[in-house]
Amino acid sequence: MASSVLLVQLIDALRCLPGVGPKTAQRMAFHLLERDREGGRQLSATLLSAMDRIGRCSRCRDLTEEAICRICNDSKRDSSLLCVLESPSDVLAIEQATGYRGLYYVLMGRLSPLDGIGPAELGLEILAQRLDAEPPIELIIATNPTVEGETTAIYLHRMASKRGIPVSRIAHGVPLGGELEFTDQSTIAHAFASRLPIKN
Amino acid sequence: MASSVLLVQLIDALRCLPGVGPKTAQRMAFHLLERDREGGRQLSATLLSAMDRIGRCSRCRDLTEEAICRICNDSKRDSSLLCVLESPSDVLAIEQATGYRGLYYVLMGRLSPLDGIGPAELGLEILAQRLDAEPPIELIIATNPTVEGETTAIYLHRMASKRGIPVSRIAHGVPLGGELEFTDQSTIAHAFASRLPIKN
Repeated sequence: MASSVLLVQLIDALRCLPGVGPKTAQRMAFHLLERDREGGRQLSATLLSAMDRIGRCSRCRDLTEEAICRICNDSKRDSSLLCVLESPSDVLAIEQATGYRGLYYVLMGRLSPLDGIGPAELGLEILAQRLDAEPPIELIIATNPTVEGETTAIYLHRMASKRGIPVSRIAHGVPLGGELEFTDQSTIAHAFASRLPIKN
Repeated sequence: MASSVLLVQLIDALRCLPGVGPKTAQRMAFHLLERDREGGRQLSATLLSAMDRIGRCSRCRDLTEEAICRICNDSKRDSSLLCVLESPSDVLAIEQATGYRGLYYVLMGRLSPLDGIGPAELGLEILAQRLDAEPPIELIIATNPTVEGETTAIYLHRMASKRGIPVSRIAHGVPLGGELEFTDQSTIAHAFASRLPIKN
């Protein structure tokens, strides 16, 4: 029995967070209650506002609370480059790691006919219209190197090629700092097959 | 740059949770936004209510949203047993692991003169009044086996002995499932010195 019903409810509610089990949820609840009530109130307010107001950008389908997201709306970005990826977290990963200044198109998934996810679910018709209306000078495909991600990449490649748009795909191989000995066989095979000539 | 200002705020607000760094906060934010908005709303409401309403029990100082907590208020519990411990999470740990049916007194800390935590900060005068008014038949000390926890235990032991109240201390030794080889020296020394006769 716990001393407080509300405490049990709080521990329970915290478990909606990914990777948070009963012990972690307890630790979080006690931390907030004993040491950071202001942080807890702030989190509550931001959570509610985010859950209610964040929708999708009407141009790139990324998460945003505006009709058009900050990236699509930024006139300083290069609208002649378009990078297609699977999810909003991929956008964040590329923004944080690279100096890419072009635009994005977020599929919010990948082609997976067995799960009922076809071109319509990924908004590929909207992407097709966009490629017709404002063809980029390069379409960069950054779907994940999984079976479904590869299928999606092939589909996107055909869409762009039909319209004469140059297509590229981000490189897959041995990660930096990784060691051949501990890299899985398919990654090594791919890296070996995709070897690049060294320029002088 | 992220697509949404609110998303950045959400990731930032999630970092008030203990053990949550930038990557985990991102994963949590995307999980809630893409897969569990209802859970996020629920968490927001419970958080706010818990932060605003949970205070301390006027009898045992444990966390509760009532004037007197559920445990102190439960007439089925044995009010002749009193267990003193450092924090509300310790109450939960004992409730979950044992069949203890007595009451608790939560110090909300431990004696630590260097940090300015003396008997007054731990509400030991209130505890003394309680020991005078309704002396338990056993005072169980469950402070942690740290230097400050031991000092607190000695202080509590004196308080109870002066009043002729029997005192016990939960056992410390090699944890169940632990191996001697991997147990630290001070635990082994303590366990060895505290060995118990085996009864037939």
